[in-house]
Amino acid sequence: MLTTICLDADDTLWHNERLFQFTQERFASLLSGYAASDHLAERLRDAERRNIERYGYGIKGFTLSMIETALQVTENRVPGKVIAELIACGQEMLRDPIELLNGVEGTVRSLAADFTLLLITKGDLLDQERKLAQSGLGELFDGVEIVSEKTSEVYVDIFTGRGIDPRHALMAGNSLKSDVIPVIAAGGWGVHVPYSPSWDLEAADAPMQHERFREITALSDLPGVIKEICGNM
Amino acid sequence: MLTTICLDADDTLWHNERLFQFTQERFASLLSGYAASDHLAERLRDAERRNIERYGYGIKGFTLSMIETALQVTENRVPGKVIAELIACGQEMLRDPIELLNGVEGTVRSLAADFTLLLITKGDLLDQERKLAQSGLGELFDGVEIVSEKTSEVYVDIFTGRGIDPRHALMAGNSLKSDVIPVIAAGGWGVHVPYSPSWDLEAADAPMQHERFREITALSDLPGVIKEICGNM
Repeated sequence: MLTTICLDADDTLWHNERLFQFTQERFASLLSGYAASDHLAERLRDAERRNIERYGYGIKGFTLSMIETALQVTENRVPGKVIAELIACGQEMLRDPIELLNGVEGTVRSLAADFTLLLITKGDLLDQERKLAQSGLGELFDGVEIVSEKTSEVYVDIFTGRGIDPRHALMAGNSLKSDVIPVIAAGGWGVHVPYSPSWDLEAADAPMQHERFREITALSDLPGVIKEICGNM
Repeated sequence: MLTTICLDADDTLWHNERLFQFTQERFASLLSGYAASDHLAERLRDAERRNIERYGYGIKGFTLSMIETALQVTENRVPGKVIAELIACGQEMLRDPIELLNGVEGTVRSLAADFTLLLITKGDLLDQERKLAQSGLGELFDGVEIVSEKTSEVYVDIFTGRGIDPRHALMAGNSLKSDVIPVIAAGGWGVHVPYSPSWDLEAADAPMQHERFREITALSDLPGVIKEICGNM
């Protein structure tokens, strides 16, 4: 029996990565007088990768990485006006209204009726809370865990803290690296719901052969997969 | 009987505000060619206050507020080199080793032996985790809650989620606004441990007359206060 269904938030319940990509395009256009735009994208990605350990995930760290990259590619000659626009870009991202993915609301409602439902997400604490509040789905979850990193140990801690046997828990999300592989390693079930565009820093190979791995094309396929898993248990 | 002791982290277990004040002085000195330093401090405080709702608490938001203020007071004429130094200031803050306040380690160890011990703190998720790991005190806590804001509702949620009767819970910390007043409102006991320097945005009046309010001069006085409260219960 599955008792607990865990869901990722960004790009699983609502659109997110497209906002980062849109902002990266604005970043490239703001800096276009100073560097070739493919070079810029690469430098920004390098900064993000370098800074993830100090800033963690989320828009504030991304904004700081944009500013750092703008300074580096221009050898500090970028005009203050452009930096001010990058700050404004970050603030606009933090105000951006969320948009649920197709079929999410009905699926989450039906799962909430039958299972202990947890939201497990990483990113800036306040921003993730804002988005969940705005989604109107907050009341459907029995628990919300906003974590700094989604490792196998983090999932074990969440399950242990709530008295959940990982063999009876399933996590679904768009990131193989964060939502699927570590949950399977923790003894649970991992369901991949790919989202396009995806983020380079989350790239990983699918554990195609693992018996507790499934892949679906949309969250609305999840209840069917749960039924199939429970039927075989 | 008290069963649960909750502790704040920054400026209750380890020094924190002095790092912000030190960085504010560096900020003022970096910008000294552009504006009077008292004016600068005021503008930075205004930016922090304005941004707290979008950035939440912590060093990343503070860094963004420093950059925003530097641009504003110079009408975008601040040199890129200064912005780069502000980014570096923020990154140094995120690397700054914590220093426990006097007597904290022994007090926390003795409380851990007798009570359910929770750490309740706000700020950047990853940074708070880093500091707790570095403190060596992490294993002594039965639970860690990093929250975006410390309101009465947040304390009620924490107590409810853990099956704790608030009348049997006590929270100690340096902020009347965040650690004391909302816990008393939630039905628990609030113990104020003042720390100097304090942060303007946390200023509040002490509920001197409330029966569940206590004030102590150092965390090492907490076990005595707990004994006094339990004796009267």
